[in-house]
Amino acid sequence: MSSVGEEVTPRLLDEYTQGFMVSQVLFAACELGVFDVLAEAREPLGSDAVAARLGSSPRGIELLLDTCASLKLLHVETGGGRALYKNTELSSTYLVRSSPRSQQNMLLYLGRTTYLCWAHLAQAVREGKNQYLNTFGVPSEELFTAIYRSEEERLQFMRGLQDVWSVQGRSVMTAFDLSPFPLVCDLGGCSGALAKECVSLYPGCQVTIFDVPQVVGTAKKHFPFPDGGRISFREGDFFKDPLPEADLYILARVLHDWTDESCSRLLRRIYQSCREGGGVLVIESLLDADGRGPLTTQLFSLNMLVQTEGQERTPAQYQALLATAGFRDVRCQRTRGIYGAVLARK
Amino acid sequence: MSSVGEEVTPRLLDEYTQGFMVSQVLFAACELGVFDVLAEAREPLGSDAVAARLGSSPRGIELLLDTCASLKLLHVETGGGRALYKNTELSSTYLVRSSPRSQQNMLLYLGRTTYLCWAHLAQAVREGKNQYLNTFGVPSEELFTAIYRSEEERLQFMRGLQDVWSVQGRSVMTAFDLSPFPLVCDLGGCSGALAKECVSLYPGCQVTIFDVPQVVGTAKKHFPFPDGGRISFREGDFFKDPLPEADLYILARVLHDWTDESCSRLLRRIYQSCREGGGVLVIESLLDADGRGPLTTQLFSLNMLVQTEGQERTPAQYQALLATAGFRDVRCQRTRGIYGAVLARK
Repeated sequence: MSSVGEEVTPRLLDEYTQGFMVSQVLFAACELGVFDVLAEAREPLGSDAVAARLGSSPRGIELLLDTCASLKLLHVETGGGRALYKNTELSSTYLVRSSPRSQQNMLLYLGRTTYLCWAHLAQAVREGKNQYLNTFGVPSEELFTAIYRSEEERLQFMRGLQDVWSVQGRSVMTAFDLSPFPLVCDLGGCSGALAKECVSLYPGCQVTIFDVPQVVGTAKKHFPFPDGGRISFREGDFFKDPLPEADLYILARVLHDWTDESCSRLLRRIYQSCREGGGVLVIESLLDADGRGPLTTQLFSLNMLVQTEGQERTPAQYQALLATAGFRDVRCQRTRGIYGAVLARK
Repeated sequence: MSSVGEEVTPRLLDEYTQGFMVSQVLFAACELGVFDVLAEAREPLGSDAVAARLGSSPRGIELLLDTCASLKLLHVETGGGRALYKNTELSSTYLVRSSPRSQQNMLLYLGRTTYLCWAHLAQAVREGKNQYLNTFGVPSEELFTAIYRSEEERLQFMRGLQDVWSVQGRSVMTAFDLSPFPLVCDLGGCSGALAKECVSLYPGCQVTIFDVPQVVGTAKKHFPFPDGGRISFREGDFFKDPLPEADLYILARVLHDWTDESCSRLLRRIYQSCREGGGVLVIESLLDADGRGPLTTQLFSLNMLVQTEGQERTPAQYQALLATAGFRDVRCQRTRGIYGAVLARK
């Protein structure tokens, strides 16, 4: 066989065009349990064995496994006339459900929910608003009524966030020394991932997780918390209900859900409840100063358009929001991960 | 601002996870007409001007344009305090509707149809079958009744194929010297893109486009054909109706739609109608000999699982199908593009 030359579509365009297929190979392999079955087997398996254990089509599984191998998500050994598959270090660490750094729940959330909302990206850009109604038939005037539209969906979302902070939580919680803040309130603290990171890192602190009643209920029911009483819960809507007094308020992936107006309202309420000398820690994916990068944060910002009322922001935009609410001494710290931290004092 | 270090998710995993977002940025920008508006303007435009011309949300458009710039699909000039956007060479060539090499229709087909089918990839792998029923509520026992489920869908599909061959047609039609074959029949010839390439390349040949009546009707109505009578149409189902006698049968992106059994049946019918010394030209994306690459062809093969009854194949698999039907002297030629050519003689 030989090859003939001719101009064809650029590689970059092919890569972008096929991006959704690559994502779904990853999501489907997670959903089917490919990485879990290979982890449990403790020895490389043939594709027929994987198909049998998963109750899936042998042809479909072989194709999926070989594609995962091309994507470096699986190793394939072809000695002895048959192919045997095993997890790579990447999949063992991040894609196997039982791994402490597993991202499986976040990937399933992205594959089942976010992927479908993004089918309506053009409409979201046209309208400048999220696409719950077009995607799921769910009105979104009350944003978190749409996001938490069923107990299953709420749990998947909370488990997904847990996955994110299991990998990125430490870097954002050590971006600043938080030991001067003994009483911490994590607003929209969700499954408690950052609260647990906080009490583990700062022996002197106590953390109140403030979230809506359904989330607090699900957190208590489905997520483990350390004994010792250093983590407590408070149910409420942070736009309406009284906020607990604290030395430090954490807002992790909260402000990006909301318009500037809603953010300002929330920050003013926090300022009023905050102890003198206390502060607020904003954890978000930060846009570059000119707003034109990094690509990941731009994609996240489009995701906020598609799934929320908000957007990702530059450090200067957070500074302005915080200053308007009365906070001073605003400092910003990027991490090696996707999230950065902004600390401001009362 | 400074930065603190901590282990985070690998870049490869982030890239795969965000692949669908990148695809949809491209698809949505095409659907909204971003590249067309910038091409028509003949001077760089600000995002407000683009939003106004497209009747879209200024905030959504600015974010989309800046993300396109990060993806090198747009240039942004930031002199004079405001950002002005214009097409890159890539977008001018491949993404503007009026460009002769435009891929816009194929991208819209991928964004509107294929993207949605792939939401069910896990289920396709489980069942080993396409997902028209789960995706669109359309039964798929008659495959092309599902694929061509409305006139609009059929036209979009045909325009998409036209885009593919406008860029890749010449390399596949010159992979072999086809001048020894004066009478050509393009089975499933669709919009006639390859037929036109064929008569343009080989002055001595005549081409009959054989396809189902609805496709022939749409081709005649919506696609231009050169005068001179060298291209004609014949309506029929190539699994059931008599095939025109010819020196060469073209099967371009046809066999990949079907099971081995259906392919064999079709090839035997072709062998019977083929003139002595004639042949068949199979044009497909070819898997590597071991079936484990290239990645693009593996993704296409998964796409065949999700959208058809077939799969992509290795050269040896095509050779076996052709030999079983009676063809001999099977030769295979890759091109620099995604498609290769396999020529066999009667």
